[in-house]
Amino acid sequence: MNEIKQLTKLILKFRNDRDWQQFHNPKDLALSLSLEASELLELFQWKTSEEAVEKDLGKMKDELADVITYALLFANETGIDVLSAVKQKMMKNDEKYPVEKAFGVNEKYNEL
Amino acid sequence: MNEIKQLTKLILKFRNDRDWQQFHNPKDLALSLSLEASELLELFQWKTSEEAVEKDLGKMKDELADVITYALLFANETGIDVLSAVKQKMMKNDEKYPVEKAFGVNEKYNEL
Amino acid sequence: MNEIKQLTKLILKFRNDRDWQQFHNPKDLALSLSLEASELLELFQWKTSEEAVEKDLGKMKDELADVITYALLFANETGIDVLSAVKQKMMKNDEKYPVEKAFGVNEKYNEL
Amino acid sequence: MNEIKQLTKLILKFRNDRDWQQFHNPKDLALSLSLEASELLELFQWKTSEEAVEKDLGKMKDELADVITYALLFANETGIDVLSAVKQKMMKNDEKYPVEKAFGVNEKYNEL
Repeated sequence: MNEIKQLTKLILKFRNDRDWQQFHNPKDLALSLSLEASELLELFQWKTSEEAVEKDLGKMKDELADVITYALLFANETGIDVLSAVKQKMMKNDEKYPVEKAFGVNEKYNEL
Repeated sequence: MNEIKQLTKLILKFRNDRDWQQFHNPKDLALSLSLEASELLELFQWKTSEEAVEKDLGKMKDELADVITYALLFANETGIDVLSAVKQKMMKNDEKYPVEKAFGVNEKYNEL
Repeated sequence: MNEIKQLTKLILKFRNDRDWQQFHNPKDLALSLSLEASELLELFQWKTSEEAVEKDLGKMKDELADVITYALLFANETGIDVLSAVKQKMMKNDEKYPVEKAFGVNEKYNEL
Repeated sequence: MNEIKQLTKLILKFRNDRDWQQFHNPKDLALSLSLEASELLELFQWKTSEEAVEKDLGKMKDELADVITYALLFANETGIDVLSAVKQKMMKNDEKYPVEKAFGVNEKYNEL
């Protein structure tokens, strides 16, 4: 089985065993995804990138896993195919950020 | 090639073509991941879950793709194996949320 | 003394007593503000608005206080006058959201 | 009139003129507060603190105003007194972060 389906299956089993599907509407899943991304970010609060990674890489692994988990639950509830979503978005990004304009520049596409 | 490696390769090519690796320290990647999660959540602002999905599923697909993209970039920079991170976190969650206590309950593990 | 100056003074004393000014650059303050806003939001996770307020109003008070605290610290570090900032922004909002277009509508100004 | 009441009155007039009270339940206000904090943070994405402030101080003023606006709307809907909330929280922080332990240390209270 491919990886994304495999992870999704694992997560859904965990979820359904606990009868939590009733809470998992897309709005609350997007909210939870945002909260987990904040928990990952919190590990960098008041620190340089290097200090934080050195101190908390183990916790980062767990928080990133939570982010991926809610991303896959969101995709599952809304019927989004993650693989094709990323591929299509990268094609859009290719147009928004043409190499000749974006090379080495840290600005948003509308400021290039 | 497996899916996660395949997506990561696609994303890194896009990134390296633009010489953006210089900006991609883990702290700014975690920050960006949080911002993209907020952009997904913004599509639900002032709306019910159903209203939002009906109106903006296409945009949700793009924003979810951005979340996945930064999650994979973060994993790549910090050397986290996404597949094993999620599997290990699900095992921890199994202990934090035992079925008999967590069944149908929308509380955090420390309030079960 | 007016309220905003009074609160700012209280917060700065707490901060300076701990020699934390060294960490309080605007980027980390904005990051912390975002984290505190997430902690407030977390109290609503998986719940309706009413359920959450009934359960956690006391915690909401604390988290809102943290949000205000970082907002005032950010304003202090960047030299922003909070009172005039809000007044000026409300005048801009008046133009972005004319009453006749925005009345009863839950869309962003660019979709009105 | 004191400042916080004055700002709240201004914001409520803007809101009520547009008949938006119907959308302003605490959960969506907390969600919006989090989104506005992210928009402020976005101005620092891929930049050092100094680069960002130099480039976008005007935008920061607007985004901070939005944060304050939602904080005051949240306080208004839930009946929280902002002034006393901050004062009480600072007293709690005094206990959580005793000067002798917290002086010059960038760790959370549970790691002091």
